[in-house]
Amino acid sequence: MKKIVTLGEIMLRLSTPGFERFVQSDSFDVVYGGGEANVAVSLANYGHDAYFVSKLPKNEIGQAAVNSLRRFGVHTDYIVRGGDRVGIYYLESGASMRPSKVIYDRAHSSIAEADASDFDFDEIFKDADWFHFSGITPALSEKAAVMTEEALRAAKRHNVTVSVDLNYRKKLWTPERAKEVMSNLMQYVDVCIGNEEDAEKVLGFKPGKTDVTSGDLELAGYKDIFEQMMKKFGFKYVISSLRESYSASDNGWSACAYDGKEFYHSRKYDIRIVDRVGGGDSFAAGVIHGLLEGKDFKDALEFGVAASALKHTVLGDFNMVTKDEVETLLKGDASGRVQR
Amino acid sequence: MKKIVTLGEIMLRLSTPGFERFVQSDSFDVVYGGGEANVAVSLANYGHDAYFVSKLPKNEIGQAAVNSLRRFGVHTDYIVRGGDRVGIYYLESGASMRPSKVIYDRAHSSIAEADASDFDFDEIFKDADWFHFSGITPALSEKAAVMTEEALRAAKRHNVTVSVDLNYRKKLWTPERAKEVMSNLMQYVDVCIGNEEDAEKVLGFKPGKTDVTSGDLELAGYKDIFEQMMKKFGFKYVISSLRESYSASDNGWSACAYDGKEFYHSRKYDIRIVDRVGGGDSFAAGVIHGLLEGKDFKDALEFGVAASALKHTVLGDFNMVTKDEVETLLKGDASGRVQR
Amino acid sequence: MKKIVTLGEIMLRLSTPGFERFVQSDSFDVVYGGGEANVAVSLANYGHDAYFVSKLPKNEIGQAAVNSLRRFGVHTDYIVRGGDRVGIYYLESGASMRPSKVIYDRAHSSIAEADASDFDFDEIFKDADWFHFSGITPALSEKAAVMTEEALRAAKRHNVTVSVDLNYRKKLWTPERAKEVMSNLMQYVDVCIGNEEDAEKVLGFKPGKTDVTSGDLELAGYKDIFEQMMKKFGFKYVISSLRESYSASDNGWSACAYDGKEFYHSRKYDIRIVDRVGGGDSFAAGVIHGLLEGKDFKDALEFGVAASALKHTVLGDFNMVTKDEVETLLKGDASGRVQR
Amino acid sequence: MKKIVTLGEIMLRLSTPGFERFVQSDSFDVVYGGGEANVAVSLANYGHDAYFVSKLPKNEIGQAAVNSLRRFGVHTDYIVRGGDRVGIYYLESGASMRPSKVIYDRAHSSIAEADASDFDFDEIFKDADWFHFSGITPALSEKAAVMTEEALRAAKRHNVTVSVDLNYRKKLWTPERAKEVMSNLMQYVDVCIGNEEDAEKVLGFKPGKTDVTSGDLELAGYKDIFEQMMKKFGFKYVISSLRESYSASDNGWSACAYDGKEFYHSRKYDIRIVDRVGGGDSFAAGVIHGLLEGKDFKDALEFGVAASALKHTVLGDFNMVTKDEVETLLKGDASGRVQR
Amino acid sequence: MKKIVTLGEIMLRLSTPGFERFVQSDSFDVVYGGGEANVAVSLANYGHDAYFVSKLPKNEIGQAAVNSLRRFGVHTDYIVRGGDRVGIYYLESGASMRPSKVIYDRAHSSIAEADASDFDFDEIFKDADWFHFSGITPALSEKAAVMTEEALRAAKRHNVTVSVDLNYRKKLWTPERAKEVMSNLMQYVDVCIGNEEDAEKVLGFKPGKTDVTSGDLELAGYKDIFEQMMKKFGFKYVISSLRESYSASDNGWSACAYDGKEFYHSRKYDIRIVDRVGGGDSFAAGVIHGLLEGKDFKDALEFGVAASALKHTVLGDFNMVTKDEVETLLKGDASGRVQR
Amino acid sequence: MKKIVTLGEIMLRLSTPGFERFVQSDSFDVVYGGGEANVAVSLANYGHDAYFVSKLPKNEIGQAAVNSLRRFGVHTDYIVRGGDRVGIYYLESGASMRPSKVIYDRAHSSIAEADASDFDFDEIFKDADWFHFSGITPALSEKAAVMTEEALRAAKRHNVTVSVDLNYRKKLWTPERAKEVMSNLMQYVDVCIGNEEDAEKVLGFKPGKTDVTSGDLELAGYKDIFEQMMKKFGFKYVISSLRESYSASDNGWSACAYDGKEFYHSRKYDIRIVDRVGGGDSFAAGVIHGLLEGKDFKDALEFGVAASALKHTVLGDFNMVTKDEVETLLKGDASGRVQR
Repeated sequence: MKKIVTLGEIMLRLSTPGFERFVQSDSFDVVYGGGEANVAVSLANYGHDAYFVSKLPKNEIGQAAVNSLRRFGVHTDYIVRGGDRVGIYYLESGASMRPSKVIYDRAHSSIAEADASDFDFDEIFKDADWFHFSGITPALSEKAAVMTEEALRAAKRHNVTVSVDLNYRKKLWTPERAKEVMSNLMQYVDVCIGNEEDAEKVLGFKPGKTDVTSGDLELAGYKDIFEQMMKKFGFKYVISSLRESYSASDNGWSACAYDGKEFYHSRKYDIRIVDRVGGGDSFAAGVIHGLLEGKDFKDALEFGVAASALKHTVLGDFNMVTKDEVETLLKGDASGRVQR
Repeated sequence: MKKIVTLGEIMLRLSTPGFERFVQSDSFDVVYGGGEANVAVSLANYGHDAYFVSKLPKNEIGQAAVNSLRRFGVHTDYIVRGGDRVGIYYLESGASMRPSKVIYDRAHSSIAEADASDFDFDEIFKDADWFHFSGITPALSEKAAVMTEEALRAAKRHNVTVSVDLNYRKKLWTPERAKEVMSNLMQYVDVCIGNEEDAEKVLGFKPGKTDVTSGDLELAGYKDIFEQMMKKFGFKYVISSLRESYSASDNGWSACAYDGKEFYHSRKYDIRIVDRVGGGDSFAAGVIHGLLEGKDFKDALEFGVAASALKHTVLGDFNMVTKDEVETLLKGDASGRVQR
Repeated sequence: MKKIVTLGEIMLRLSTPGFERFVQSDSFDVVYGGGEANVAVSLANYGHDAYFVSKLPKNEIGQAAVNSLRRFGVHTDYIVRGGDRVGIYYLESGASMRPSKVIYDRAHSSIAEADASDFDFDEIFKDADWFHFSGITPALSEKAAVMTEEALRAAKRHNVTVSVDLNYRKKLWTPERAKEVMSNLMQYVDVCIGNEEDAEKVLGFKPGKTDVTSGDLELAGYKDIFEQMMKKFGFKYVISSLRESYSASDNGWSACAYDGKEFYHSRKYDIRIVDRVGGGDSFAAGVIHGLLEGKDFKDALEFGVAASALKHTVLGDFNMVTKDEVETLLKGDASGRVQR
Repeated sequence: MKKIVTLGEIMLRLSTPGFERFVQSDSFDVVYGGGEANVAVSLANYGHDAYFVSKLPKNEIGQAAVNSLRRFGVHTDYIVRGGDRVGIYYLESGASMRPSKVIYDRAHSSIAEADASDFDFDEIFKDADWFHFSGITPALSEKAAVMTEEALRAAKRHNVTVSVDLNYRKKLWTPERAKEVMSNLMQYVDVCIGNEEDAEKVLGFKPGKTDVTSGDLELAGYKDIFEQMMKKFGFKYVISSLRESYSASDNGWSACAYDGKEFYHSRKYDIRIVDRVGGGDSFAAGVIHGLLEGKDFKDALEFGVAASALKHTVLGDFNMVTKDEVETLLKGDASGRVQR
Repeated sequence: MKKIVTLGEIMLRLSTPGFERFVQSDSFDVVYGGGEANVAVSLANYGHDAYFVSKLPKNEIGQAAVNSLRRFGVHTDYIVRGGDRVGIYYLESGASMRPSKVIYDRAHSSIAEADASDFDFDEIFKDADWFHFSGITPALSEKAAVMTEEALRAAKRHNVTVSVDLNYRKKLWTPERAKEVMSNLMQYVDVCIGNEEDAEKVLGFKPGKTDVTSGDLELAGYKDIFEQMMKKFGFKYVISSLRESYSASDNGWSACAYDGKEFYHSRKYDIRIVDRVGGGDSFAAGVIHGLLEGKDFKDALEFGVAASALKHTVLGDFNMVTKDEVETLLKGDASGRVQR
Repeated sequence: MKKIVTLGEIMLRLSTPGFERFVQSDSFDVVYGGGEANVAVSLANYGHDAYFVSKLPKNEIGQAAVNSLRRFGVHTDYIVRGGDRVGIYYLESGASMRPSKVIYDRAHSSIAEADASDFDFDEIFKDADWFHFSGITPALSEKAAVMTEEALRAAKRHNVTVSVDLNYRKKLWTPERAKEVMSNLMQYVDVCIGNEEDAEKVLGFKPGKTDVTSGDLELAGYKDIFEQMMKKFGFKYVISSLRESYSASDNGWSACAYDGKEFYHSRKYDIRIVDRVGGGDSFAAGVIHGLLEGKDFKDALEFGVAASALKHTVLGDFNMVTKDEVETLLKGDASGRVQR
C-alpha cells in the first residue's frame, strides 16, 4: 500500500439526467469530480493510500465534496476548509453526432484563491511515494501556479516520484501563459502524460498531421514528439491516450508511450460510451498504479488503457472499478457476459 | 427576423420512461407536441417570430400546452381557448427490432372541433412571411378541413409563402378522403414536403419500387414522382426526407429534393436514436429556415437534414437545437467530441 | 387455451437504475422473476392458462411477488404461503466491455425450504397439458430435489408433457451433484433445453470446441451432443439457444434444435440489449407455445427465437410481448419503424 | 368467499408527483381507478371473489387497466374489450388551503359508449352474492343508463343484494336528469350510500342546514333525510360518510347510518391526508364487507369508517389495506407506532 | 392589462428533493427564481404585461433562466445577454424544528457585474405603469446600486409608480452600507414593503419589542414604525407581511399596512408549508396587482396575503396561482375540498 | 477527539419511496443502517474518531455498506470481510393512523455468523475511550452473544467506558433468552439506555402503569425502575427516551434519566416526523457525546434529546446533523426559520 498525493480542484458536477438538454431539464444529477480527485479515487479503489489535497469552503456543499471522496476511501486529512465556493461544471451528455457540452463556472473557487501557505507540504509529502498533478491546477490562478510549484519542490525534497497530466484547458489560460508556467514545472516531473493537443498548447511541441475529428491517428508523429519531450525535459516516461471519436456514442480508445527506448501502442478498445468524463484521469491513475506495483512499463500502460476503457461505461467522474475487474479485462475477456 | 405562422394541433404526449413498455409503466413523461407546433418551435429556436395557431381548452392542461410553446419562444397570441380537451398521444420507445408504438387518443380535441370562425386569419397573416401546415390539420375533422382552406386563402391574400408536409395519418382518414381534400389544397402550396408513402396515399402518386423496411431507397423513383407532382400542382420545390430503418435504435437519414431543374440527394447521417418523434417536422423547419434566410436551395436542404439528424438525439417532440449547433454539424464535425 | 404448470422460485430482483454500479446507487428498481415464473408469464401473455407453483412467505414481500404474477395473468392458486423469506438477486447492468453482475442472496428462501408435502401435485396436474421446470429448482436444496421428482411423477401420472431447461447454476451446486440429481430426473422429460455449458455441467456431455467469449459457435459439436442426449435419455426434442456475446451491449442470438431426424439452425438476430435477463426463459416459453399450438417443430423454434430476441429489449425478467408482436417479427419486419 | 360484482368505469389517472401543480409538472404518476373498480379491489383485498364488469379498448392502455385489477386479485373475466378509449382524469393534489383539482377527460370512453348487449348479465350474476354500482355508471351516457338497469334487473333475477353509492357528478349530468334516472333505479337497491349533496342532487332530498366548508355537521338533518329515503324507496340501510374539510391536508372522517330503527354515528378519525381520492369507495367496500361477513350493522359501519380512514393514507385510488390492518385500527390502536 | 417592470437578479435554484439534506443528496431539483423575477411571474399570472429586466450569460444556463420566465408569460425582451455566470442558491427544505437552509453562490453573476449602460431605461419605462425592485438589487454590487438609481430616475421621468421590497440580505452588505444606499433610493418610492428586520437594517427604524422566534407580534410597534417611515420618506403606503414561525412545517401568515390614515391587520392564515421561498415576493405582487386593478387598499392587502398564503403550498420560487384561485380563497373557502 | 468503538450489524435498508406501500412500489430507496452503526455515524458527525466493528461479505453490497460509513467519516478499519450476506430490513413509512412497517430479513448475515476470533479486540480497544453496543448484537446468534462478551471483556481490560442500548427485538429472541444473556452482560456496563419495554423484556424490571399507545407517560414508574436497575447492576447512569405516539405522523419526544441522585425529565419536542428510524440511536449518540465532552449529565441528556428530535426530520437511519445544529436547537430556537 503506497501513499499517493494528488493536488487540485474538486468541483460540483451538475449533469442533466440521461440525454436531456440543459434547456429542458428540471433536475441535475449531482456528483463531485475533477482531474486529480478522480486520480485519487482510482488509486484508492486499487488499494492505495490516496490523499487528495485541496481547499473547500466551510459549508455543506464543501462537506458533500469531502464526503464523496471519503466514500471511496480517499484520505481527506489534508483538505483545508475555507474560501468562498465550490467550483461547478455543468454537463450535458451528447449522443450520436450531438456532442457533450461542458459549461464551467469555476472562477473564484476556494482552491483557485488558496495560498501556498494554506498547506503544510512537508507534512503532506512525508513518506509519500508518488505525487500527481495536472495542468489544470496551476491554470486555476496565479496563486495556484505558485502553490503548485511549492508542492513540487516539497515533493522533490521528499524524493517523491512526480507525474503530470498536461490537460490543457483553453477556458483557464492562453497557450502562451500555459507554456510559460508549465515549461518551468516540467523540471520536477518524472512521468508526463498528455495528448497531442496538450503537447502543443502546453509545451509547444507539434506532431505531424493528426486530425482528431477524423479518427486518423498518426502514431509516427507521436513518437517524434515524445522523443523531443524526453530530450528537452528528461522525463522517464512520456505517455498519451488516443481517442478516436466516431461519434458522441462510440469511441475508439488506446494509448501510446515511450520509455526512451521503445515506443508502444496498446490494445485498442471500441467503446459504447456511458460517461466519458474522467476517461483521461482513469488512464493516468491506471498507469500510475501499474508503475507503483512494479509492473513492467508495457503492462502498466495496458492496465491504464483497460482501466480507462471501463471508465467510459461508468457514470460520474470517478472510475468505480476494482483491480480485479481491470485484470479480467486485461486477460482478454471483453465479451461482457453476465457474471453470476 | 421573419413572421411565420403554423396551424395545427398540439397534443399532450405521454411517454413511458426509458425503454419501459406501456403495460409495465407507473409514470409517463409529459411533453407537448404535434407537427406544426414542432415546426414553430424549431423556427423560434432559429430566431424567427413563430406563431402557432390552434385551439386549446380553458383548463390547466391547455395552459400547460401554451406554456410549453412560450418556454421556447413561440408566440401564442393567436391560440384560442375553448372546447373540451387536449388531444393525447401515448408513446412507447422501441429498441433494436422492437418498434416504437404510438396510440392516438385525439378525437374530439378542441382544435378538431374548432370552427374557421374561431380565428381571424386576416389579422394572423398580416405581415407574415411564411405559412406552414401539414396533412394532419385538415384530417382532424371536416370542420378542420374547411378551416385549413380558409387559412390558406387568407395566406394567399397576404402573399404569404406556403409549405405543406403531406404527413399521411391512416388513423385519421382514408386515402380516398385524403386525396379529395389535399388535392384541392395543393393549389395554395409553394413548397411540398412528403415521403413516398405520403405522395401515394395523399396525392395518389406512385414511385418505383421502394421497400422501406429493407432500407433500399430508389432515388430514381423519387425523381420521377417529384416531376409529376411539380407538373400537376406547380410547386416551387418538392422535398422528401429519406429514412432507412436499420432498427428501432439505428437509422440512416438523408433527404432528396427537386427544384424543377435539378434533383439533389443530401449528405446521409447514421444515427443512434434517442427520440425520433418530430424528426420530419424538424426537417421541414430546417428547410423553411434555410429558404427564409435566403440560402440556396441545396444548402437549405442540407440545413434541414443536419437539423433533423440532431433532432433524433433530443428527447421530446421539439428540436431543441440552435442555429449554431446545426451550422457546426453542417461544417462537417459529426465526431461528437466534448465541447468545453 | 392450455393448462401449463411451472414449478420453481420467484425472487425479488433488485437492480441498479440505468448503468449505475452497485457502489454508487441510492435506489434499486424492483421487479420479481425467476426461470419458471418467467416462463409462466410468457405463456400467460400468449393466452394460455399458466399456473406457477411455489412457496412464498406470508408477508408483504411475498404478496408483492404474487401480485407481480397476477398482474400478467398467471394463476397463483397453487402458491403456498409460508416460510421465512423471498430469495433475492441483485443485478447491475453492464455496458460495452463491462459485464452485467448478478449477486445471489437466495439461500433459506421459502421454496428452498419447502417440503414436497406442501403441494397437492395430483390436484395441480389435473387436466394439465404441460409441465416445465428448470435445473435451478432441484438445485435449491435437497428437499427441493425430492419435491421436483414428486412433481415429475405426478405429471407423468396425469400424462402431462414435460420440458426442462437445464440451466446450470454453479453457485447452487457442483457439477457432480447436478449430474447425480438431473440424470435421474431426465427419465420424465420429453423436451430438453440447454446450452453447451448446461449439457456438460449438468449431464456430462461435451461438445466439440466452442469458445463462447469469441462468438465462435460450432454447430457441428451441438449436433453431436444432441444425438448423444437423445440416445441416452429418449428426449423427443433437444434444443439450445445460441448466444454470441460481442459485448455487454450487443449480442447475436439464434438457436439450434434436433428432433431425432433433422438438425435445425434458426434465423439469427443482432440485438442492442436493453435487459438480457430472462432471455433463455422467454426462448423456452416461445418454443413450448409453438409446440402447444401445434406448429411444426421448426416454426416453434423460430417462434421461440423471435420471442426471446424481443425479450432482450424489455426491462425486467418477464417477457412482456404479445403473440402478435412475435408474429410480426417472424414475418420478417425487424426494421423497428414506428407503429402508429 | 363471496362473489361480488361491480359495474362501472375504470379510468387512467394521471396525477402530478407530490405537490406539483399541473402547469409545472414534467411527468404524471399513473394508476388506474374509478368508483366501482375501487370497491372491487377493496373487496378482493378482504378475500372475496370480486368481479369488475366494464368495457376497455383493445390497446395497451386498456390492457394496463386490466392488469392493474388483476394485480390486486380482482377477476377480469367479464371485462369486454373494444371501443375507442380509456377515460382519463387528471389529478393535482392540494395542500393546506389550496384544494386538490380533478380534470375529467372521460367522454367517449369504451364503457360510456358500450351497449347493454355487450354483457351477458345472466352469466355475470350467476351465483353472485352482491352487486354494487354507483350513480356515476348510469350518468356516463344514455346507453350506460339503460345498461345499468339491465344489470340491476338481472341481479334481482338472481336474488343478488344490491348497493348503490349515489355519487353525484355535476360534470356528467344535471340534477334533473340524475333524479329522473336514479329515482327509477332505486327500486332495485337494498343498501343506499350517499352524502347530503348526493341525496339532494340525485334524489331530491334536502337535509337541514349543513355547511360542508365549515365542518359543521348536522347529524339531525341526516337522520331526517334517511328516514324519508327509507320510506320512499324501501332501502334496508341508508348510510353516509361524513367529511369535515379542515384543509386539503387535514380532514375529519366519520359516518352515520340508519337501519330503520336506530341512527348511528361512528367513531371519528382525524386524518393527515396522503391521498383522499377513493375514500368514499373504500368506505362503501368496507361496509359491504362487514355486511357480507355477517357483522352486525353498527360493526359493519365501523369497519367501513376505519378502512376508509386508512385509505386516506394510501396513494392511488385503490385502498391497499388488508382485513387485519383494518381490524387492528378498529381495536383502537391509532398510535401509528412502528410494527416490526 | 398594465405594463409592469421589475429589475433584479434571477438565480439558478438548486434544491434537494423532498426533505433530503445537502450531504445526502444525489440530485438537485432545478428551478429559477429571485425576488423581482418572482414578482414578475405573479403579475404575468394575473394577466399583466410583466417585464423582467436583468442580465444573463450567453450560455444554456442563462437561456434556461430566460425560458423559465417565458414559460409563465413574462416578457424577456429587456434581458441583456452577457457576463460570466448565473448566480446560484442552494436550498435545503427544513421540517419541524429543523430550519430550511439557503447557501448563496451569487457573487460575480452577470447582473452583479452589469453596468447601467447595458440597459436603455427610457425604452424600458416607456408606457410603463409600475416599477418594482427590492433591496437585493442595489446590494448586488456598487455598479448595481448605481444602475438601480438610474432605473429609478428613468421610472420617475416616465411617471411610473414605484414599489420597493426592502428585503435585507446580510450576506450581501452591512446595515451601514444598506442604509446609505437605500435611504437615498427611498426618494423615488411610492409603496414601501418590508418587515421589521428590514426596516431596522435597511432604514434604521426600530419598532418596539418583537421576537420573531416566539411568534409574538407587536402590531403596535409596526404602526409606530410605519408612521415614522411615512413621515420621513413620504411613502403613499407602508406594508409588511407578518410571519409567525411555529416550526419549519407550520407558519402563521398575515400582513399589516398603513395608508397614512388607517392601520390595517389582515386575515391570518395557518399554513402547512410546502415551499416558503418566494412567499414575500408573492405578497408584494399580490398587493401591486390589487392596487393596479384599483381595488381599495384594504382589499389589495387581503389579495396579497391570500395570494402569498397559497404560494407557501406551491413548489419553486414562482407563485403559480391564478387570479381566480386567489379570489376563491378570498371569498372564504379555505376548506381545501377537491374541485372536480 | 475521542476514540469510540461500536459493535453490531449494519443492514441494507430497502424502503418504499414516500408513502408508497410495499405492494405498490416499483423501487426501493437504498441506505444502510443499524443501531450501532447509526451511533458511530452520529459521533463521527460530532467530530470524534468513531470505529464501527462488524463483518460484511466480500461483495459489492458489503462494499456499499462500508462506503456508506466512510462517507460520513466513520473508520472502517476493523470491519472484517467475509461470510454470506448483508442483512436486510424492508421499511414502509406510515402516515396518520397507518403505522410504519419493518420486515426483517437478517438471519444468516455475515455478522450473525461471525466468530469472536474474527476480531482482534485488544487491537480494537487500544486507546479507546468509549464502547457502545446494543441488545441487538448479542441477540443475532449464539456466537454473536459470545463475541459481544469477548468485546466487553477486552473493553474493560483497556478501561473503556461502556454504554448499552437495551433495544429489545422480539423477532430475534425471547424475553427469557434476552434476560439470560443480557443480565450477564450488564456487569460490564456503565451507562444503560433503554425504555420501559426494554427494561421489562430484557432485564425483567416492570415500571408502574404506562400505556405507550395512549401517550400516557408515568415518569414516576420510570424513576422507580431506574433505581432498581442501578441498585442491581451498578450503572453510573440510567437513561430512557420517551416517545408519545400521537400518530405515525406526529410524536412527542423527550427523555428521562437518573444519575443515582437526581431524576431528570428533559425538554419535550413535538415532532412532525420525516423518518423516525434511528431516533433512539441518535439519542444514545447524543448523550454519549455530551458525556465524552464533559458536559454535566443534565446537559448531556438535553443534547441527546435535541439531537434525536432533529433525527426525526432526517431521511435514513443516520442522523446527519452537526454539533452546531444541535446547539442551535438547544439554545431554544425551534422556530424553523430559514437560515440564509
